[in-house]
Amino acid sequence: MVKTKLSSNSPIGVFDSGLGGLTVLKSLKNILPGESFIYFGDTAHVPYGNKSADTVIKYSQNILNFFSTYHIKAVVIACNTASAVAYDILQQQYFLPIFDVVSTSVEYTIKQSQTKNIGVIGTTSTINSKAYSQKIRELNEKISVYEVSCPLFVPIIEEGWAETEIAKEIAGIYLHGFEEKNIDSLILGCTHYPIMANTIHSALPNNVKMVFSGETVGLKLSAYLNENGLINTSSFEGTIDFYVSDFPQKFDELGSRFFGEKLNNVEHISLL
Amino acid sequence: MVKTKLSSNSPIGVFDSGLGGLTVLKSLKNILPGESFIYFGDTAHVPYGNKSADTVIKYSQNILNFFSTYHIKAVVIACNTASAVAYDILQQQYFLPIFDVVSTSVEYTIKQSQTKNIGVIGTTSTINSKAYSQKIRELNEKISVYEVSCPLFVPIIEEGWAETEIAKEIAGIYLHGFEEKNIDSLILGCTHYPIMANTIHSALPNNVKMVFSGETVGLKLSAYLNENGLINTSSFEGTIDFYVSDFPQKFDELGSRFFGEKLNNVEHISLL
Repeated sequence: MVKTKLSSNSPIGVFDSGLGGLTVLKSLKNILPGESFIYFGDTAHVPYGNKSADTVIKYSQNILNFFSTYHIKAVVIACNTASAVAYDILQQQYFLPIFDVVSTSVEYTIKQSQTKNIGVIGTTSTINSKAYSQKIRELNEKISVYEVSCPLFVPIIEEGWAETEIAKEIAGIYLHGFEEKNIDSLILGCTHYPIMANTIHSALPNNVKMVFSGETVGLKLSAYLNENGLINTSSFEGTIDFYVSDFPQKFDELGSRFFGEKLNNVEHISLL
Repeated sequence: MVKTKLSSNSPIGVFDSGLGGLTVLKSLKNILPGESFIYFGDTAHVPYGNKSADTVIKYSQNILNFFSTYHIKAVVIACNTASAVAYDILQQQYFLPIFDVVSTSVEYTIKQSQTKNIGVIGTTSTINSKAYSQKIRELNEKISVYEVSCPLFVPIIEEGWAETEIAKEIAGIYLHGFEEKNIDSLILGCTHYPIMANTIHSALPNNVKMVFSGETVGLKLSAYLNENGLINTSSFEGTIDFYVSDFPQKFDELGSRFFGEKLNNVEHISLL
């Protein structure tokens, strides 16, 4: 990794298959308020979860090539699918510090868990990929992992029904199995899920702590920047530029729901 | 339209953004059992509903160019989004008879409706596009149209929950407003919806007839082929070749759920 090329004044690139990664960006901004960010939402290709690994790798490479023109000092892969299938190869191909949401959430949760029983929820593709359970076993094979796919959570959130009775019923169906597993930590393995954190929490045993990938990757990135003298000290508040590869339906509504405020400086760019 | 180039032995091209169009193909096969079909599911780009019109037109053109290499005698646009945004321009650009699901369902429903109050349900993008209401008003401005988007139906169907209590609750929320509208016809403006027809029907007033786009486009295509001497009389049963631009999760399960039987002869092809 050629760290000498990195400059503390440079922005940090954050990408996701769509707008869900804005919940990650929101956490990063809270943890690192002086940093500038470039967010790329690949809305022309969303969702990545139903694409092949080769296709997701190609899309991710295109985005990193785009980021490279901004002399970024770090990359955050805010997309679970891209984290699972593209992180390793991107690390080999690019001379940049790259942080993904899967391994950072796993490292954090392993340290936190007392019962050594960890739950993971995500989209069907994320759960089927076994990305979380493989990473957990890689780091500590004594930990038991219970994974449940919750494919209706994303559409429920996008419908604006995150805290309705129907959402609670659906959460109850998906999550009731955790009760007997003695988990004490649940990784929210999808960037949309923080939006329905209250509903998810109400369907879990009281002692279970939810793990938010935006926070775990934010803490790891913050530590890295501090250790390497890369914290941006030139400004009190950083800037954020948003790029999307297509303008989807309900873009403004979803964007501000995920980011917590209205998106400004949004530009369209096609990377094909 | 250069009809002289068309041969009755040629196949019919059917395309959709993904696998939902297989419900249309199933109807076409029932209505025209002697015909051969080429189905293209653009699973690398699904869903079209959240893409811009320009992007959907470009994807549709790529698919028609691919179909052209098979000397097809007709095209069925089984995708509501592509029907809404690409049908007119494709008709101008290609010397082929092209049938779309929007205008055929509208023509059929206008003839059928006694109360002249028509309901339409679809995805958010289809309903927001006003494709159905505009087409209805174009043909008969005295008809009242009531459109409701049902964005959770597709994920509920893909989850395999089409006939569950939760599906009925969601259908009740989306559809209860039709009761006071005196509609007698409801266009199912999404290729997935036939899978949950029973649930949808149970949430509607008793007198409401559901309109299935696969049937309406099948009847219109059949009439066209008959009138133009293009019915394939060379075989008792036609062949079907399936092409997809990516192999999504649950491909086999969803494919056979939508088509009603296992898909054979599926090939991957990237059109970019």
